[in-house]
Amino acid sequence: MAADLPLRILVTGAGGFVGQALVRALVADHQVIATDRDGLAFGDLRNVHAMAGDLGDPALLMGVTQHPVDALIHLATVPGGAAEAQRMQGSHINVTVAVALIDAVAAHGNRPRVLFASSIAVFGDPLPPRVDDDTPASPMLRYGAHKAMVEEWIATMTRRGEIDGLSLRLPGIIARPKGPSGMKSAFMSDVFHALKAGAPVTLPVSADATCWLLSRSTLVANIIAALGLPQDPADTRLNLPALRVAMGDLVAEIARQTGADPALAHYAPDAAIEAAFGAQPPLTTARADALGLRHDGDIAALVAHAVAEL
Amino acid sequence: MAADLPLRILVTGAGGFVGQALVRALVADHQVIATDRDGLAFGDLRNVHAMAGDLGDPALLMGVTQHPVDALIHLATVPGGAAEAQRMQGSHINVTVAVALIDAVAAHGNRPRVLFASSIAVFGDPLPPRVDDDTPASPMLRYGAHKAMVEEWIATMTRRGEIDGLSLRLPGIIARPKGPSGMKSAFMSDVFHALKAGAPVTLPVSADATCWLLSRSTLVANIIAALGLPQDPADTRLNLPALRVAMGDLVAEIARQTGADPALAHYAPDAAIEAAFGAQPPLTTARADALGLRHDGDIAALVAHAVAEL
Repeated sequence: MAADLPLRILVTGAGGFVGQALVRALVADHQVIATDRDGLAFGDLRNVHAMAGDLGDPALLMGVTQHPVDALIHLATVPGGAAEAQRMQGSHINVTVAVALIDAVAAHGNRPRVLFASSIAVFGDPLPPRVDDDTPASPMLRYGAHKAMVEEWIATMTRRGEIDGLSLRLPGIIARPKGPSGMKSAFMSDVFHALKAGAPVTLPVSADATCWLLSRSTLVANIIAALGLPQDPADTRLNLPALRVAMGDLVAEIARQTGADPALAHYAPDAAIEAAFGAQPPLTTARADALGLRHDGDIAALVAHAVAEL
Repeated sequence: MAADLPLRILVTGAGGFVGQALVRALVADHQVIATDRDGLAFGDLRNVHAMAGDLGDPALLMGVTQHPVDALIHLATVPGGAAEAQRMQGSHINVTVAVALIDAVAAHGNRPRVLFASSIAVFGDPLPPRVDDDTPASPMLRYGAHKAMVEEWIATMTRRGEIDGLSLRLPGIIARPKGPSGMKSAFMSDVFHALKAGAPVTLPVSADATCWLLSRSTLVANIIAALGLPQDPADTRLNLPALRVAMGDLVAEIARQTGADPALAHYAPDAAIEAAFGAQPPLTTARADALGLRHDGDIAALVAHAVAEL
């Protein structure tokens, strides 16, 4: 990848929760082409070329890829719950469009860096007693299979020398905005909004449920760091560092930092949700750690980073 | 899978080299729905419902999947060479349509057996010194990545209990018909036709090149055996047994059985073809062997099976 700044970077899903913060962080040093189906609000920024539209529309896809980019950061996705409910749309956006997009940026022949927002959903459930860099993918959600399939495409295209790809497997990112997200893991973020507002919240997991979490600001820092990581064609899949947190401890820390009563949180475990999102075992991420990627440090910092953005 | 005969079986790519022989073998015991883009010639057979058309046409896909089937045997594919030349068409048929087809047969809720014609192309090149059941996928061709991606989909859908899937990784199948096939490995079959006709043939590999081969009739027997194999949701990927043959030995044996002069074969190795198709190391297929699947036995039997069908 070219080391000369500014880089020309295409960001998909740029209007989303992660995308918005990422674009705002990138424009300090780089030129960004930002695209999202749901519109974009970067009118106050220089260095952003915003192109609103659906990546499933061939004209939009052609438009955002017509000029070479130094890097593609592909965040756009149909999330887990929505991909179960809308199967055709899920596999179309999550697989077909991702393959076409990667082909399109590769076609200029400049071997761009491609960062793909994959997910810990590739591991499925039940999870083994520990997860590390050698744990094989074994998805249970359609969404997880979609991510594993695109990881395979990125691995192959990198092996061929057509791109310089890296699939970053994201843990739970907090705290996403309120409202329907299509995510089965939305409760991890909803608890922040409820406690801050002094409102009761019912969690679909137990107080003992353990989740891998990362704040948005720390994720953005990791994505930007990943732009400059050395290429490793033999292993393009990277588990991002995450803090493993018990839900009861998370509630206590949010309550402490927001002054809320922790008793506002009620636990009504749903067996499927607990299995998929609340039974995450110890996680080691030796490769990412060695590359300088980081989680938030401790639960106080994790919650502080998330609360600061509520 | 229901054990009661006859089974109702959907075969895609039924007009192809493997598909035609498979359908003719299946109809002795089963009801077959046969589909192929290039037309079908089963007018002489009972027990076949032929539906010609392109699986990429949603109406055709809906038509062939509107009633439940006990099994899907998915052979239709854009082969390796063609998938490099026609990228959009390649990923559309090989990935998008395969995913939609598997979803469609699963949607009836009867958990059909799905046999997917995957390929040794998932291993890419260069190959390790030995290949066995634990060798990870590492494709180099787009076609190989497509196959690995659909293997992932089948593994996930089987884990979910929506299908009872098995991805059979096919080695080189001989002897395919003469003429353009879109296959980079066509030389493995062309040599049979040339020697039988007493015509010279130039092979893009050396006499020492080693290839994994299986005759069509033995492949068909393996596919039919795979219809009744027990489900193993933990491992839906299966390397088919194959005979490892040196090209010079293959030429000598074809010449012996057809009465041709082996000197009709000239070797003009192409480095890329030799690496991709002529450097296949010792292969062990313990899982398939234990399940009763078989290769042709020895080179004399392999060539005899292929010559019998020329």
